[in-house]
Amino acid sequence: MTHASHFLTLADIARHLDATLVGNGQTAVRGLATLKDAGPDQIAFLANRAYLKDLAATRAGAVLLHPDHGESCPAARLELDNPYLGYALLSQLFDPVPARDRPGIHPAATVADSARLGEGVCVAANAVIEPGAVLGKRVVVGPGSVVGADSELGDDTRLHANVTVGHGVVVGKRVILQSGCVIGGDGFGFAHDGAGWHKIAQLGGVVLGDDVEVGSCSSIDRGALGDTRIGRDVKIDSQVQIAHNVQIGDHSALAGCVGIAGSTRVGKHCMLGGGVGLSGHLTLCDGVQVTGMSLVTNSIHEPGVYSSGTGAMANHQWRKSAVRFKQLDDMAKRLSRLEKHRD
Amino acid sequence: MTHASHFLTLADIARHLDATLVGNGQTAVRGLATLKDAGPDQIAFLANRAYLKDLAATRAGAVLLHPDHGESCPAARLELDNPYLGYALLSQLFDPVPARDRPGIHPAATVADSARLGEGVCVAANAVIEPGAVLGKRVVVGPGSVVGADSELGDDTRLHANVTVGHGVVVGKRVILQSGCVIGGDGFGFAHDGAGWHKIAQLGGVVLGDDVEVGSCSSIDRGALGDTRIGRDVKIDSQVQIAHNVQIGDHSALAGCVGIAGSTRVGKHCMLGGGVGLSGHLTLCDGVQVTGMSLVTNSIHEPGVYSSGTGAMANHQWRKSAVRFKQLDDMAKRLSRLEKHRD
Amino acid sequence: MTHASHFLTLADIARHLDATLVGNGQTAVRGLATLKDAGPDQIAFLANRAYLKDLAATRAGAVLLHPDHGESCPAARLELDNPYLGYALLSQLFDPVPARDRPGIHPAATVADSARLGEGVCVAANAVIEPGAVLGKRVVVGPGSVVGADSELGDDTRLHANVTVGHGVVVGKRVILQSGCVIGGDGFGFAHDGAGWHKIAQLGGVVLGDDVEVGSCSSIDRGALGDTRIGRDVKIDSQVQIAHNVQIGDHSALAGCVGIAGSTRVGKHCMLGGGVGLSGHLTLCDGVQVTGMSLVTNSIHEPGVYSSGTGAMANHQWRKSAVRFKQLDDMAKRLSRLEKHRD
Repeated sequence: MTHASHFLTLADIARHLDATLVGNGQTAVRGLATLKDAGPDQIAFLANRAYLKDLAATRAGAVLLHPDHGESCPAARLELDNPYLGYALLSQLFDPVPARDRPGIHPAATVADSARLGEGVCVAANAVIEPGAVLGKRVVVGPGSVVGADSELGDDTRLHANVTVGHGVVVGKRVILQSGCVIGGDGFGFAHDGAGWHKIAQLGGVVLGDDVEVGSCSSIDRGALGDTRIGRDVKIDSQVQIAHNVQIGDHSALAGCVGIAGSTRVGKHCMLGGGVGLSGHLTLCDGVQVTGMSLVTNSIHEPGVYSSGTGAMANHQWRKSAVRFKQLDDMAKRLSRLEKHRD
Repeated sequence: MTHASHFLTLADIARHLDATLVGNGQTAVRGLATLKDAGPDQIAFLANRAYLKDLAATRAGAVLLHPDHGESCPAARLELDNPYLGYALLSQLFDPVPARDRPGIHPAATVADSARLGEGVCVAANAVIEPGAVLGKRVVVGPGSVVGADSELGDDTRLHANVTVGHGVVVGKRVILQSGCVIGGDGFGFAHDGAGWHKIAQLGGVVLGDDVEVGSCSSIDRGALGDTRIGRDVKIDSQVQIAHNVQIGDHSALAGCVGIAGSTRVGKHCMLGGGVGLSGHLTLCDGVQVTGMSLVTNSIHEPGVYSSGTGAMANHQWRKSAVRFKQLDDMAKRLSRLEKHRD
Repeated sequence: MTHASHFLTLADIARHLDATLVGNGQTAVRGLATLKDAGPDQIAFLANRAYLKDLAATRAGAVLLHPDHGESCPAARLELDNPYLGYALLSQLFDPVPARDRPGIHPAATVADSARLGEGVCVAANAVIEPGAVLGKRVVVGPGSVVGADSELGDDTRLHANVTVGHGVVVGKRVILQSGCVIGGDGFGFAHDGAGWHKIAQLGGVVLGDDVEVGSCSSIDRGALGDTRIGRDVKIDSQVQIAHNVQIGDHSALAGCVGIAGSTRVGKHCMLGGGVGLSGHLTLCDGVQVTGMSLVTNSIHEPGVYSSGTGAMANHQWRKSAVRFKQLDDMAKRLSRLEKHRD
């Protein structure tokens, strides 16, 4: 269910968002909801014209919207140029999670004597902080999470439950690691002697910049020699795999189930759709977008949108196209022959 | 190895499955196996004509099968209309897992004072039950699993090891959560201010219906505002990612590595093959089947089987087809020109 | 950062690698790095001609290389026929992980009375060893990891943090399980009664051969009746899903995000690229390679390289090809008509 929370007055919210309030500043709301679902004690937002139809009938106590839509609003309103950004900033005020943090070390946690913890740190039950780890101020380590030897977590970083940070990993400030993710597992490196495999010890680390988020059950492997590097403000969804020595530029966003092979470099402000795969040792320049489930096997040097694959269709029709796909080269040659014959 | 178990007589089994026994009811078996592998103290089943060839030579102590195949059975037999269903029901009798449950709270578990536990609950070592959580009767929480604040688990629900259920998640009755899965991690939501990302706090929850199963290392994210909703009797395999505000209809089944983007609605009795990807904000009607690794980018309003992609072929041939795929539009135009020229 | 470590003399290293040293055997190095990054107290290697350009300018204290490149080396050198293998063996000497192992059972671990532990076993904080489990000599169980009832771990096997090994799983010697992986979750098996699903209890186990490695957040499901079997020296990357009753032959390697459906058999010395999907009940012979993100829906009986899909291209061009893909069968028929007409 949507989590109720404390009450905020519209005046406070307008101040916080630097928005123009049209309505009674003393009106208090206790949560956020969509235009359709919001009640009188909730605030809604209009950030997408597709939902304009819901504005007239909304029961919301107030609405965040662009000044252009102010006139059509039946309720109190907060006008600002980027209502979606306003919604984001406001949502953080209603987040019930921080309120639950209990500074201190839970008696059922295990913290090595040589670990260094900043003020206001919260270490939950059954968390493990290994020797030499350094936790900044107000770091939160959730239940069952493990911080490896000699790793560093920056101020205000939060590990949810059952997160694993390996040894020698450097995590920036305000980083959020969702439950079940693993930062610093070994990269996939082996040498073949003609008969079988010999492990290449992965001696590098992982460096996560400030404001990075990593989703549930995602994995970022440590480097073979140098580090795997995730830039500032990079957002990584759930079930993502990032291999050893990959580098991701600042502000890039990776959707769920993305897989990036070893040593590939992704630029800044890139966006990879769900299930995208990048081969190893590639370079993607800044501003590249790749649509869902595309496979990229060559470097990309021009910003823009890239795709591969085929759209879904009825299976009985798809079967015909799939068979013809295997005949494509033959078809092309026959086409050329016909053209020659015509001339 | 296959787990031996207690002995059951054929008479007991016939009664449990409502099957017709042909043979000695006092014969006892201690486990299930295939027609090929079963020994005299095991029971086998014939649910697929492909295995009919193994029936004559089976050493099984008894066989579950359809009456049509009774005559060909060299051993004692239990006849029933749906032998595969019979196998399923019988397999549960031989499952060694429930027998190991130890009602009570392990001394190495951490249970908040404000949590409410029903009778017969088992909380294993190093499990953590956060404040306000409510566990129904006979709930089993495996070692290292975490139940978040204010979450609810219905009667007879089982969390295996190292499972994470976030705060404010509602789980139905008889739900099974396999090890390493994460229910209620944050959805992937951010607003861009032109320079970088601002987190949208994910204020919704997750609701899992009765009889849902979620596989190992799968993740189901919490909603942004409303809840992510998984219907009754939905079966979800391993390594699956379900994004915020997705809705899955009752009795649908999702195979391994499926990824579903935000706010997409899947109907009832749908089946998604392994690695299928669904874009966000789509609607799939009831009774849709999507074959393995297909990408669906548009809503589907007709029941049926859908596919995308191309079948695997020898790489040297595939390279030619892949090159021609990029020339397809040109080929089609040249084909039209030739047709015009012909007339 | 790259992890510094203890010092080794070039004479010791030459002896360990059976390499020919050209230079001062008393020179000591404390770590490995690339030709480009290495300093005087580090050793580098040349295993790929692409990096030959970096050799002349390297500041490395010594270089591992093939005798053919000895003359071009400005530093002390260790000559051997397979420098990449030499790098692998040397990297293990600089691995800081084993040095941190603390034999014994951490007071915050939970070990069942009926578990049997070999000499030199390390069980970390909050690890759980269930009844009947058997751990060989020098086995390491990391923090938060769980070893299920009646499972067996061979000598020198290492579980990193938050690993889950289910009940009745047999793990060989020198196996490495990365953090967050799950071995022995239930396979995905259900019988339909016309209205809904009935669980098929997964009564089989998982058997991992000697020298297997499994990556972060990967899952290997237990068999329905017989076991899921992973052969000797099989290397499995992160985010991989292996379904029930799959069999993988010795020395095969599976890259990240691979998914293999139930009962499929993969031969020996096979290599599956990242994101490859194999349908169920297939057989791949020895020596098969499948390129990244290919879907295999039929058995493969000839060694070689196989592929499916289409390469990435600019989205506006891809849209045209994707539309034409749906018209392929029609195009092929029109082409045939033109050919007939020509004759």
